[in-house]
Amino acid sequence: MKIEGRNAVVELLKTDKTVDKLLMQRGSEKAAGRIFAMAREKGIRVQFADAKALDAESETGRHQGVIAFVSDYAYVELDELLASKDGGRFVIVCDGIEDVHNLGSILRVAECAGADGVIIPKAKSAQVTGAVVRISEGAANHVRVARVPGVNYAVDELKKKGFWVYGLEAGGEDLYSCDLSGDIAFVIGGEDRGVGALTRKKCDKLLSLPLRGQVNSLNASVALGIAAYEALRQRR
Amino acid sequence: MKIEGRNAVVELLKTDKTVDKLLMQRGSEKAAGRIFAMAREKGIRVQFADAKALDAESETGRHQGVIAFVSDYAYVELDELLASKDGGRFVIVCDGIEDVHNLGSILRVAECAGADGVIIPKAKSAQVTGAVVRISEGAANHVRVARVPGVNYAVDELKKKGFWVYGLEAGGEDLYSCDLSGDIAFVIGGEDRGVGALTRKKCDKLLSLPLRGQVNSLNASVALGIAAYEALRQRR
Repeated sequence: MKIEGRNAVVELLKTDKTVDKLLMQRGSEKAAGRIFAMAREKGIRVQFADAKALDAESETGRHQGVIAFVSDYAYVELDELLASKDGGRFVIVCDGIEDVHNLGSILRVAECAGADGVIIPKAKSAQVTGAVVRISEGAANHVRVARVPGVNYAVDELKKKGFWVYGLEAGGEDLYSCDLSGDIAFVIGGEDRGVGALTRKKCDKLLSLPLRGQVNSLNASVALGIAAYEALRQRR
Repeated sequence: MKIEGRNAVVELLKTDKTVDKLLMQRGSEKAAGRIFAMAREKGIRVQFADAKALDAESETGRHQGVIAFVSDYAYVELDELLASKDGGRFVIVCDGIEDVHNLGSILRVAECAGADGVIIPKAKSAQVTGAVVRISEGAANHVRVARVPGVNYAVDELKKKGFWVYGLEAGGEDLYSCDLSGDIAFVIGGEDRGVGALTRKKCDKLLSLPLRGQVNSLNASVALGIAAYEALRQRR
């Protein structure tokens, strides 16, 4: 997998993930001096090349003079992600987020809000590719992601382990009237169809944001951001 | 200006904006039946064409079989946007949002959170193009946008008219400890540089979101969504 762009690579280098090689644009030692220093300190092989070579290697077209080559994204096991902890667990479940921009943005929200992890299904969902890591501004390197056969399986497991599972959907209870303490999970649906019908039924409750305009929905990652920060506000 | 995609066109048709023509893909009368019916009811000229013709007209490449041709986006005057109202005014100021996706997403947040309007500078900022309207899922047709010579001018005007002006920036006061009632404005900066140095000084206060991870920022529209909904929560 390739991680591209300065912010994403800096965040990568802060982790203990294995970086096979760092490709840097010739003459960028100064502009990307911090990255060069971090890589040197960690003993990572740095290879210099001209802009054309980086353009050719780039998957996103926005490498900013630096591309890191890493082993494939290291997903965690669901059990590990759901392990007990003091102060209540907080998990995000993605139901049919197929757009890489949305997934990247969701991972960024999850990391900033201090979520314990994100669950994605193996099929009909964007996976954590290099592009997603870049869009997440490197947050994907810090937040844990587990893959499951399907969203309903994840919801069942969450409920078995004592989580309150809340679907973020239109027509639900007001988000602000809900007690978001304890072990909680938010299920967020894809832009077009929202949370799946069966999953909605499995959720303990559906929660909705008040909408004051005439357009009846927010982008998935924005809606999640608002709900996750309301949880954080209540829980601290 | 062209408005493309079903959601964006439906939202457009709900307004009283002048639509010069509606271009629909041949055979889409059923799939886009609601749009066809709305257009007929409003006496808008509907022209049918094949997919190729729509592809050629499309600016975004995602027309979903429908493109509306409208006169240029109707900005409002700043004075109109800042007019007094009962229950407190709520305005959003964009400082250097150059990415059309971010601006579209910000307009969507503003509309859903019931903001009275959005202020953008005429230079060094994305403007409300057809692509922005589409990205906003049509919200741009409902929320008012005013253009100003510069952000500092807007902040001065807001303060003259009795607004509390809050810059959303790292290193500020905790968002949740701030009283967000009354006439308020949030200033949101572009991804790379944030709120400009002089603008920061002009703001009554800088407000920050708690960040629980290792990545130190959220996307501009997500951060705005969280702050706008905290304002909405406090104000209702």
